[in-house]
Amino acid sequence: MSLRLRRALLLLVAASGGAALSIAAAFGVRFGPESPDEAARRILERGLHEEKAHALLRSLLEAAPMRLTGSPGAEAALAHMEAVMRGLGFANVHREAVRVERWERGAETAVIEASAFGPEIDLAVCALGGSVGTAPEGLAAEVLEVRSFRELEAAADAARGKIVFFNRPMDRAVLDPFRAYGENAELRVRGAVEAAKRGAVAVLVRSLTMRRDRHPHTGLMRYEDGPPRIPAAAVATEDADGLSARLRETPGLTVRLKLGCRSAGSVWSSNLIGELRGSERPGEIILIGGHLDAWDLGSGAHDDGAGCVHAVEALRLIKAVGLVPKRTIRAVLFMDEEFGGTGGRSYAGAPEREGERHLAAFESDRGGFLPLAVGIGGGPEVLRRFEGLGALLRSSGVVLGLVAGGGGVDIAPLAEQGALLGGLIPDAARYFDHHHSALDVLEAVHPRELELGAIALALTAFLIARDGI
Amino acid sequence: MSLRLRRALLLLVAASGGAALSIAAAFGVRFGPESPDEAARRILERGLHEEKAHALLRSLLEAAPMRLTGSPGAEAALAHMEAVMRGLGFANVHREAVRVERWERGAETAVIEASAFGPEIDLAVCALGGSVGTAPEGLAAEVLEVRSFRELEAAADAARGKIVFFNRPMDRAVLDPFRAYGENAELRVRGAVEAAKRGAVAVLVRSLTMRRDRHPHTGLMRYEDGPPRIPAAAVATEDADGLSARLRETPGLTVRLKLGCRSAGSVWSSNLIGELRGSERPGEIILIGGHLDAWDLGSGAHDDGAGCVHAVEALRLIKAVGLVPKRTIRAVLFMDEEFGGTGGRSYAGAPEREGERHLAAFESDRGGFLPLAVGIGGGPEVLRRFEGLGALLRSSGVVLGLVAGGGGVDIAPLAEQGALLGGLIPDAARYFDHHHSALDVLEAVHPRELELGAIALALTAFLIARDGI
Repeated sequence: MSLRLRRALLLLVAASGGAALSIAAAFGVRFGPESPDEAARRILERGLHEEKAHALLRSLLEAAPMRLTGSPGAEAALAHMEAVMRGLGFANVHREAVRVERWERGAETAVIEASAFGPEIDLAVCALGGSVGTAPEGLAAEVLEVRSFRELEAAADAARGKIVFFNRPMDRAVLDPFRAYGENAELRVRGAVEAAKRGAVAVLVRSLTMRRDRHPHTGLMRYEDGPPRIPAAAVATEDADGLSARLRETPGLTVRLKLGCRSAGSVWSSNLIGELRGSERPGEIILIGGHLDAWDLGSGAHDDGAGCVHAVEALRLIKAVGLVPKRTIRAVLFMDEEFGGTGGRSYAGAPEREGERHLAAFESDRGGFLPLAVGIGGGPEVLRRFEGLGALLRSSGVVLGLVAGGGGVDIAPLAEQGALLGGLIPDAARYFDHHHSALDVLEAVHPRELELGAIALALTAFLIARDGI
Repeated sequence: MSLRLRRALLLLVAASGGAALSIAAAFGVRFGPESPDEAARRILERGLHEEKAHALLRSLLEAAPMRLTGSPGAEAALAHMEAVMRGLGFANVHREAVRVERWERGAETAVIEASAFGPEIDLAVCALGGSVGTAPEGLAAEVLEVRSFRELEAAADAARGKIVFFNRPMDRAVLDPFRAYGENAELRVRGAVEAAKRGAVAVLVRSLTMRRDRHPHTGLMRYEDGPPRIPAAAVATEDADGLSARLRETPGLTVRLKLGCRSAGSVWSSNLIGELRGSERPGEIILIGGHLDAWDLGSGAHDDGAGCVHAVEALRLIKAVGLVPKRTIRAVLFMDEEFGGTGGRSYAGAPEREGERHLAAFESDRGGFLPLAVGIGGGPEVLRRFEGLGALLRSSGVVLGLVAGGGGVDIAPLAEQGALLGGLIPDAARYFDHHHSALDVLEAVHPRELELGAIALALTAFLIARDGI
């Protein structure tokens, strides 16, 4: 076919959409880059063939394995990912300031003290994020085991002077692990406050995982004005079961808890931004984001190295296959999701948002597992509008395609600015095995599953950038 | 509510089906055990809470880690699972004879021989199942690398006296790993025949996996009458890449291959059967099956320990929650899937089949990963008929519910007897990482994912046993 005929046909395609595509197909012309089918095919094949997401994740975890909000590691992660984005030729690569609270872990131990009934036993524990430390020599107290705030309340004065041990396993009969997690998370977040109100001197909280192992899982806890700020630690599930068994044998046993953690004041950090600038409406933005900070026990591979890599790899793929989005597709790596979400709020409120309009924002913060769906808000009308995207996602490895749902801490503030919120919804069966623990490492992330998430977000962002909302 | 009123309502429910269920619900009566919703709820909660499938798998792999067809290990597996089925109170537990060919592995090595260009290098290889061995001192020959049978054909006489090295990577741009596997499997199965026709003395076949590692993956190969029977081995993907690189540097290098494998004649083995007898139509059977034999490099945890455990755990769950199927639900653990499927053919042709009618047969032989769907044959009409089952599966953790598809080697012969064929369709992203290699071990199977597969099959079998086809 002559170049001229090919050009004429492509113009026809561009001018008149679907019908012309069939004409073009009848002439044996390859679809132009603006054809959704062709875009999807290219992104899928390139992504699966190269599988670069995993290498990108490896590079991030090697450059900055420890990325606690406000830490030097978090700054190293910013520097690394900024260099990555520049190296990939993204536009408008820059940081935006975020004020964050810094917290440091320090040494941490807990032992069941020796008694007439048995020798000293180590417990695998870790401080919960934000907890105050103990005095250097630690604190020793009897342990009161409860399953719930209600049981704590019923115990009345029995908590006074004790370590309250919240030992409610996640309910494994609940199908959705996120729901089972949500049902127990209050014990971790508010346990110290509730126990302190009743005179407790510290809390131990059973780790939020369905696994039975010796890895404690950290996560945020909060204090409130009023009750004393008492130390709070998570205890691994096997150790929680062991402590519970010992308590049944030996009422009155004491645990000595030492936590070296401390607040280290507030510091400046950043969100990191990079984008593919829209060719027609650059002020209209489709955002894909994850959070760059992470808990420090593992290397935050799933939570949320995977989300950061999803965002960057999605943009890389769009660019690599030669697609130019009509609207701007932006990757945002948020700081401080784990310690309160100041990054998300700072981004939404930054002066740089003047004159920008966010059509949609997709958060990936549920790990790098097989993508079951891309969630999107806006109700049935939006789902109907993007039926074609749903079909493309299904033929690109996203099991259910496009469904209602999604969103997350970092993008939530953009709802006020009219953005539709969405997100990647991967398989959650293994997520809480790793979450906030030493098991959240590169080896737990499967290269192909991770890549499929990036492909899903690339397709979603490109199609919305093409068609608007 | 009085016991009498409760009984009366339950009778009403049993007599008049759906409408009465609503009446019963309006009276606040719990659904009877025959209500699909109630059955599904019980099976799901019991399964997730107890998660016994993984412990069952562990017990099988500990009792019989090596289960090559016809081996003492396979007999140990039969004895173990027979005891398990009896212990669980299954009915009609018995074995049915299967004549199988036995093959033994022996020691196996391959080295790139030292030359002026470099030292000796070990290659990670394993004999393909059914291969003849080499002489004890091995054989040494130059290597001819090809990507396909077409390339081999084009090389004409160049293969004479050589080791033909089939080095075509699985195409990772293909979305469905089973399709990518299928596209390359002929090199493993027929490579020795095609190479021998052209005078080759042995074949090395690149392992069928998308992983890059040093674990060779075995699997069945076949000879045909005519061409000489030459030894055939798989080479790990990293070693295949290394050998290929060395061949580019050093044309004419030689590899010395030693394979101690041999055929050990035919022996008697068995399929193992156990069931929940139908209360109303015991001669109508819904079969769930996996295969008990396995390759010997790992312990066959996914392939197909998982499938055996799916079948047994599905029956256990139905029984444990107090459900009595109207038709017979039968677990069949087939022998010899990997070495030719004599177990499936023997089962279909056994005298015990007289007077039995198999309505449907579901095979689980795609690993113990997250169930994406239950597949069923019979076309759109059957899918419509079982829409309710599809919805129950979706609310029980089977992402897509009931879809068209499924089937497998062991149940295929039952199609002639009118059985609808189906099967469990788990996520396949990781399957070929483990398949037929030393990586197919218990640790690669996730307890919750495995259990969800058993739950899916329990629900499917129970509903079909209730409603017929």
